[in-house]
Amino acid sequence: MIPVYQRILNSASKSKFLQCFHIKVQFNSHISYYSVKDIYLSKDSIGHKAEVKGWVKAVRKMKDNVFIDLDDGSWPEKLQVVIPKSVVPKNLTYGSSVELSGKLLPNQLKKVELVLDDIKVVGPCVVADGYPFAPRKSYSADYVRQYIHLRPRTRILSSLLRIRHGAALALHQYFNGLGYCKIDVPVLTSNDCEGAGEVFIVKPDSEKLIREMGSPGMTPEEAFFNGKTYLTVSGQLHLEIAARAMGKVYCLGPTFRAENSRSRLHLSEFYMAEAELAFVKDLDSILKLMEGLIKTMCQTLMDTCAEDVHLFVKTQGEENCLNIEHLLKSPFTVDSYDNVFNVIDNHRSLFTEPLKKGDPLSKEHELFLVKHNNNLPIFVVDWPTGIKPFYMKAHTNDSSKVHAVDLLCTNVGELCGGSLREDDFDTLVSKLKTHDLEDNLGWYLELRKFGNVPTGGFGMGFERFLQVILGIPNIKDAIPFPRWPHNCKL
Amino acid sequence: MIPVYQRILNSASKSKFLQCFHIKVQFNSHISYYSVKDIYLSKDSIGHKAEVKGWVKAVRKMKDNVFIDLDDGSWPEKLQVVIPKSVVPKNLTYGSSVELSGKLLPNQLKKVELVLDDIKVVGPCVVADGYPFAPRKSYSADYVRQYIHLRPRTRILSSLLRIRHGAALALHQYFNGLGYCKIDVPVLTSNDCEGAGEVFIVKPDSEKLIREMGSPGMTPEEAFFNGKTYLTVSGQLHLEIAARAMGKVYCLGPTFRAENSRSRLHLSEFYMAEAELAFVKDLDSILKLMEGLIKTMCQTLMDTCAEDVHLFVKTQGEENCLNIEHLLKSPFTVDSYDNVFNVIDNHRSLFTEPLKKGDPLSKEHELFLVKHNNNLPIFVVDWPTGIKPFYMKAHTNDSSKVHAVDLLCTNVGELCGGSLREDDFDTLVSKLKTHDLEDNLGWYLELRKFGNVPTGGFGMGFERFLQVILGIPNIKDAIPFPRWPHNCKL
Repeated sequence: MIPVYQRILNSASKSKFLQCFHIKVQFNSHISYYSVKDIYLSKDSIGHKAEVKGWVKAVRKMKDNVFIDLDDGSWPEKLQVVIPKSVVPKNLTYGSSVELSGKLLPNQLKKVELVLDDIKVVGPCVVADGYPFAPRKSYSADYVRQYIHLRPRTRILSSLLRIRHGAALALHQYFNGLGYCKIDVPVLTSNDCEGAGEVFIVKPDSEKLIREMGSPGMTPEEAFFNGKTYLTVSGQLHLEIAARAMGKVYCLGPTFRAENSRSRLHLSEFYMAEAELAFVKDLDSILKLMEGLIKTMCQTLMDTCAEDVHLFVKTQGEENCLNIEHLLKSPFTVDSYDNVFNVIDNHRSLFTEPLKKGDPLSKEHELFLVKHNNNLPIFVVDWPTGIKPFYMKAHTNDSSKVHAVDLLCTNVGELCGGSLREDDFDTLVSKLKTHDLEDNLGWYLELRKFGNVPTGGFGMGFERFLQVILGIPNIKDAIPFPRWPHNCKL
Repeated sequence: MIPVYQRILNSASKSKFLQCFHIKVQFNSHISYYSVKDIYLSKDSIGHKAEVKGWVKAVRKMKDNVFIDLDDGSWPEKLQVVIPKSVVPKNLTYGSSVELSGKLLPNQLKKVELVLDDIKVVGPCVVADGYPFAPRKSYSADYVRQYIHLRPRTRILSSLLRIRHGAALALHQYFNGLGYCKIDVPVLTSNDCEGAGEVFIVKPDSEKLIREMGSPGMTPEEAFFNGKTYLTVSGQLHLEIAARAMGKVYCLGPTFRAENSRSRLHLSEFYMAEAELAFVKDLDSILKLMEGLIKTMCQTLMDTCAEDVHLFVKTQGEENCLNIEHLLKSPFTVDSYDNVFNVIDNHRSLFTEPLKKGDPLSKEHELFLVKHNNNLPIFVVDWPTGIKPFYMKAHTNDSSKVHAVDLLCTNVGELCGGSLREDDFDTLVSKLKTHDLEDNLGWYLELRKFGNVPTGGFGMGFERFLQVILGIPNIKDAIPFPRWPHNCKL
C-alpha cells in the first residue's frame, strides 16, 4: 500500500522529507532512502553507492581492514562496514556517531556490507571520560538502569522500544478494525475509580498561583480545580460514559499508583489498555475480545519485529519467554474461582500461605495455576463479590459472586482484569451507599437512568504484556522511563 | 487486507467475538456482522433479516407508522427504522436504547432502512426526569459542556470523538511508515522542560504514606520520589535521549500547564504530538516533516471519516473551517521573523498593541499573518534568541537568532513549534549556566558528550489541530474530558 505522504507531497518536498532515512542510495537514474532493516530485507541496493549515518556498536581490527558494526536504530542486526586501515580516523571508537559513504556489496555470509570510500566521525565517544558501557561487555539490568539517559543505546533496550512501539500499533489496529473508537481518558480526575486510596494528588507548584486562585477555607490542593484532583488509576468510568454513546471504545495510556511497592511487577506510572463494550450480555464476549487482542498483538509482533522478539528469547532464555506459536494455536482455558480454589487447596503443601475460600489469589497461587495449565493463559471467572470493586455485576445464578474475570499468564500472574458492569439502577444505588460513594458518583448513576445499556470491559497492563511475551523479569525494563518509589530520574 | 484476528481465531471464537458489532445480518447460508456505517456503504445486506442494537435519536409519528433514527456510534448518519403503529412500545422515546429485529430494505431515497418485526426498549429515557437534551433542539457548546458525562451522546461530539480517533491513528501510521519509533515519554518528571514554572507538583494523597516514606528535612512533596516531581510540560528532552539511540522517534500523549488562563485555546491537560530526528542539519527537513504530517492527517481523515468532517463544516460554517482540498494542493509558505515583523509593522494601525522588534507575536499578529497568507498555514523561521528556550540552536549566519520555527494556522494561530537543538557541548554549558539549569541537566549535557549527533524536532498541539481543521472555537470542545482552571469534573 502506498503511504499517504507519497500521494500528496510533491517531489521537491519529498526529497527533503525523506532525509530522515539514514541511508541514501544512488541508483543510475534516481535516489532512494532506506534504513539498515530495509537494506537487509530488500537487497535491491546491492552494487550501488550509498551514504550512511549511524552509531558504531563494535570495532574489529584485522590485518588490512577495520570492521565496524553500524546501528541506525531500525532493528537489532547491524550493518557491517569495511574500512581500509589507512583511512581509519583516530577517534573512531565504540559508541561514536559517524557519516559514511561507500558501496553496498554482498559479503561471504551473503549479507550486505558497506565497503567504505569516506568516513567522518560526527560525535566521538571516549569511554574513559565516563561512558558507562564498554565494548564486548554485558551488564546487569540493574546496572544499566542507573544510566536511564543512555540506556536506549543498549541492544536489548532498543529492541524493547521497537517491540513496545509495534505492540501499541497492533493494539490500535486491532480495535480500529473492530470499529472501536479510541477515547483519550483524562489523567487528571476527581474520582478514585478503584477506591483503594492509592492515589497521587496534584496542585500547582506556584504558591502565588494557589493564593490567587483559592477561596477561604480551601486547602492548597483544592485551589486550582475547586476540589481535590488526583492522577487516574483507571479510565474505566470514563470509558463507560463513552461506551453509552459510541457503542465500542478503548484507551491506551498512563495510569498511576501511589503505593510503596518494590515488587518487580509494579510501577508508579504504567500503561494500561482498557476497552468497554455496550449491549454485552455475557462475560464470554469479553473473554473472546481479550483473547483476540493478545493473539493479534503476538501475531503482529511476529509479522513486524520477529528479530527483536528473538533477541529477547535468546537473552532471557526460552524457558522464561512465552512460546508464541504454542499460544497462537491454543484456545485459552476458562475456569471458575471455585474450581481453581479446589486445585490450589489440593496442592496446599506447595504454598507459603494456604488460600482461604473467598480470599484473593496471591502471586504464588496465580503462577502455580498457569504452570498447572501447561504455561498457557487461563481465565478465572465468577469471583466472590467481597474482593471485587463496586461496579461489577452480580452473578445471574449466585448472588455471592460477580461476573468478573482475571487472565493469568506466565511470569506476571494477573495480566488482565475485566467484568460485566452493574447496570441495574437500584442495585447500584445500594452498592454506592455501602461503599460511601453516593455523593461523588451521581453522574455514574445518571448513565443508567437515561438510555441505559448493559456494558462490560477489561483492562490489560501494557508493560506486563511485554513481560509475559519477552520474559522480562523486572517491569522497570519494559518501559523507557520507569518511575517507582524513591526514583523519578529525569 | 484481512485483519489479523480473522487469520488466527477459530470460527467458534469468532462468532462470540464479533458480537461487538451492533448489526447481525442473517444471510441464507451464514451470519455477518456490521455497523450502521457498513450497512450504508456496502448495501450487500439489503433484503436480509437483521438484529440491530442502538440508541433512538429521533421519533417521527406518521399516519400508519412511526419512524425512528437509530444510532450505533459508528458514523453521523442514522439508520431509519419503520415501525407499524400497532407495535410501538409506550416507552420508545428520544434517547432510549433499543434492540430490534426486521428486514433491511431500500427506501424511496435509495437508502437502507429497517422494516421492523420486533422491538425491545432496553433502557428508557424520560426527558422530564432530568435528561438535559430534548429532541429537535440545538444547544450551545457552553450548555452541553455542563453535562460532560452525557455530552458524547450529542451528534457533534460523537463526530469529534471519531475524528479524534482517526487523526491519532493517521499520525501513528505516518510516523510508523517513515520508520519512527513511538516512545512513551513519562508524565511524572523531575524536569521543567520549558523553564516557565507553570507546572503541577504531585505527592501521595495518603499522609500516612508520606510519613512512612519521607526522611528528615524533606517536604511532603519530596517524600515519595526523593525529590520534587512534576507533571510533564513537554516530552522533548526525553525524546532527545531516545533519538540518540533510535534515530527517529515521536510521541503523542497528555501534557500539563498550571496556568490560570481562561482562553479558548488553553487547557490544563492537553495532548501534544512531538517528534525528534537525529543527523538533521537544516531546519527545512523539520518543516517538511511537519507539512507532511499535517497533510497526511488531513488526507487520511478525508479518506476515513469525511462524513464526520462535513458535519463540522456544516455546523461551524465553511468560512470558519480550513479548506482541506485547498490546503492539500498548496505548499506551505515559509517566511522569517524579520520579514513578518515588517509586514506587521506596515499594518500597525490594525492592532491593539504595536509589535516591538524582538518580541513574541501576539495571537492577533499570528491570525493576521495567516489571513494575509490567503488563510493557508505559514512557517515563521529564524526567531530572536531571547524569546526562545535554552535548547534551540544558534543560527549559523546570525548569532542573535535561533534555528526555530512556529507554524501559524487559521483559528488558533500557533499550531506547531520546532527547532534544531543546540548540540555544541560548550555552547550548551554556557546556556545552561545563564538559565541556572546546570545542576538539574547534567544528563542532558552527557547526551552531547558521547556519540553526539545534531537533532531537531517539533511539537504540535493535538486539540489545536482539530480546532484548525474543524473550525472549533473553543478547545474544550476538541477533547472528551476537558480540564481547565476551576473545572475538573468526573
